[in-house]
Amino acid sequence: MTTNTQVQNSKNEKANVKQPIIDVDVHEMLPNLKHIAKYLDQPWKRWVTDTLWGGLRQLPYVQHLDGGVERVDAKPGDGRPAGSDYVLMKQQLLDEYNVEHAILTGLFYPSTMRAQFEFGTALASAYNDYQIKEWLEKDSRFKGSVHINCHEPEKAAYEIDRVGQHPQMVQVLLPIGDFAYGDPRFHPIFEAAQRNGLHIAMHQSTRTTTALDNGYPRYFIEWHSLLPQAFMSQVVSLVCNGVFEKFPNLKCILLEGGFVWIPALMWRLDHNYKSLRREVPWLKRMPSQVIREHFHAATQPIEQPDPKEMLQMVEMIGNDKFLLFATDYPHWDFDDPNTSLPTTFSKELKRKILYDNAKELYGFK
Amino acid sequence: MTTNTQVQNSKNEKANVKQPIIDVDVHEMLPNLKHIAKYLDQPWKRWVTDTLWGGLRQLPYVQHLDGGVERVDAKPGDGRPAGSDYVLMKQQLLDEYNVEHAILTGLFYPSTMRAQFEFGTALASAYNDYQIKEWLEKDSRFKGSVHINCHEPEKAAYEIDRVGQHPQMVQVLLPIGDFAYGDPRFHPIFEAAQRNGLHIAMHQSTRTTTALDNGYPRYFIEWHSLLPQAFMSQVVSLVCNGVFEKFPNLKCILLEGGFVWIPALMWRLDHNYKSLRREVPWLKRMPSQVIREHFHAATQPIEQPDPKEMLQMVEMIGNDKFLLFATDYPHWDFDDPNTSLPTTFSKELKRKILYDNAKELYGFK
Repeated sequence: MTTNTQVQNSKNEKANVKQPIIDVDVHEMLPNLKHIAKYLDQPWKRWVTDTLWGGLRQLPYVQHLDGGVERVDAKPGDGRPAGSDYVLMKQQLLDEYNVEHAILTGLFYPSTMRAQFEFGTALASAYNDYQIKEWLEKDSRFKGSVHINCHEPEKAAYEIDRVGQHPQMVQVLLPIGDFAYGDPRFHPIFEAAQRNGLHIAMHQSTRTTTALDNGYPRYFIEWHSLLPQAFMSQVVSLVCNGVFEKFPNLKCILLEGGFVWIPALMWRLDHNYKSLRREVPWLKRMPSQVIREHFHAATQPIEQPDPKEMLQMVEMIGNDKFLLFATDYPHWDFDDPNTSLPTTFSKELKRKILYDNAKELYGFK
Repeated sequence: MTTNTQVQNSKNEKANVKQPIIDVDVHEMLPNLKHIAKYLDQPWKRWVTDTLWGGLRQLPYVQHLDGGVERVDAKPGDGRPAGSDYVLMKQQLLDEYNVEHAILTGLFYPSTMRAQFEFGTALASAYNDYQIKEWLEKDSRFKGSVHINCHEPEKAAYEIDRVGQHPQMVQVLLPIGDFAYGDPRFHPIFEAAQRNGLHIAMHQSTRTTTALDNGYPRYFIEWHSLLPQAFMSQVVSLVCNGVFEKFPNLKCILLEGGFVWIPALMWRLDHNYKSLRREVPWLKRMPSQVIREHFHAATQPIEQPDPKEMLQMVEMIGNDKFLLFATDYPHWDFDDPNTSLPTTFSKELKRKILYDNAKELYGFK
């Protein structure tokens, strides 16, 4: 969350900040829904321009802060959403914080549609063309995410092959809905990602469900507090269904789902693996080992417990390359690179999280 | 999990064990399904004896260990399930481990029915009569749980009033299904529990759901590793829906859902509360404070990370009265009181977990 005080602080400190940043979760936004039509062929173009289609699925909740899910100061002021104006993003994020690479993660996820799958696939493809033309080509600091409709896995693999070799594309983005990606029906997606040297990034979506009440508890604060559950389920699903045995080069980055729950999950899964591993004979290693080797998590939104406890938690994860920094610009719970990491983190650990880990993982020069 | 080595160890150590135990999760079982008919009036009796009713809902998974979900050595050997024979339970649990109080939690949860609610309410009532007559009256060490059908909350409150004053009844058992108990429709249950001086205990059930894939992932190991999610959702639901503001004397005990996830959940919920508390204005205190004051968790099944890390986790919970010991007798993942707590726990902390905390919480003399 950005407050005026925080923004002020970051300005005061700016002169001292030499540390370059890699921000692994930046949301570029379409200026409006109809804009995607420019990148669609018929008949899909007409589906967007001439029908009552209202866009991808929305959350059932109102986020009632002044800007909704947006930072108030990141709105361009002309009716376009926060994150849709390159110049403002450049000023407020790239230049303000010395961001060397900003990984774009969008928020237009056709996989949240669970109907009319061909339309979803066309939308994903159009979005990739939009992302390349209106963002990646404007600034070499932007890195891209290949968007797909996961419900047509073979066509998703085709789309990954189509745009995955763009020099700024670094990953395939899998929004987290109400289904787990370990299911073998999704494996063509992982195969295509590995073939193209891309990582997998997972991000919450409007369709991210939690354990009870059909996935959506009564209040937004409940849903937002509980949505790491869907990330836990994805980790367990990928590990137990042997995705990393089948695609050993694959890395998966968890965006906006937190990370302090990782030790508890590794411990319980390891404990169960000792008794129950006959059920998943293709899984040859301790789950915690697979998780440490194949997963990374973004820090945002970082919790603020006692800083000593936060450091203990990071040490329990047991891999100092695990965490990557993210701001989540331009959203309400933006984390400031200068102030959000706990005081107990050493300079070296901070540098790894803010820069080195992502640089190595993505192979940035 | 009990191994032969562990059983042997516990026998060797028995002579040295003076520490009395309070076991807060012991599953007494009906000898067979039809047995419940003895405690039912018509027409429900006939529903059990004369129809094809197959019992309460089962999990979709096979637990493939030799005894299924039962300890092989706890099966009486005559076809009755483990946990249905008092003499064997007395020998293997109460006497073996110097158990001063064993809190019975059953495994016959009519709330898992989502149809024919009057029948569910009758079954719960019959089960309470069975529990009193065939278990509580046999051994004063047994303490009881009031079973209810939560889907008829007013009748559930009546049932709590009917048997809640039995001197051995200590709590109301709420099995965790696919819905969260913070919803105001369930508040008559909490009101009746508080009125009768009973705590609330929550236990997983065959209907406990996880975040994705309609609640049930592909494999049992996944489901069992992820089921703490449903407990997280219950904690968030009770806290955010103001149950403890409305019923300030209520305590809630989490059984078999683990506890190492508590710090991560408290931190994220506190973090969100700072921004979003206007959405739940009845919640007047930091969520972590409410959780520390109103919740307890049973240790079983306790994970086995580095013992130093486990101690750090307990310290992060920040309340040394939070944990209560449980064996989960007679189930496959039984925890032995002599060997399951980490070596890093001090004698004093072990004594609190094994005995003092439950004694104080339940007011045992």
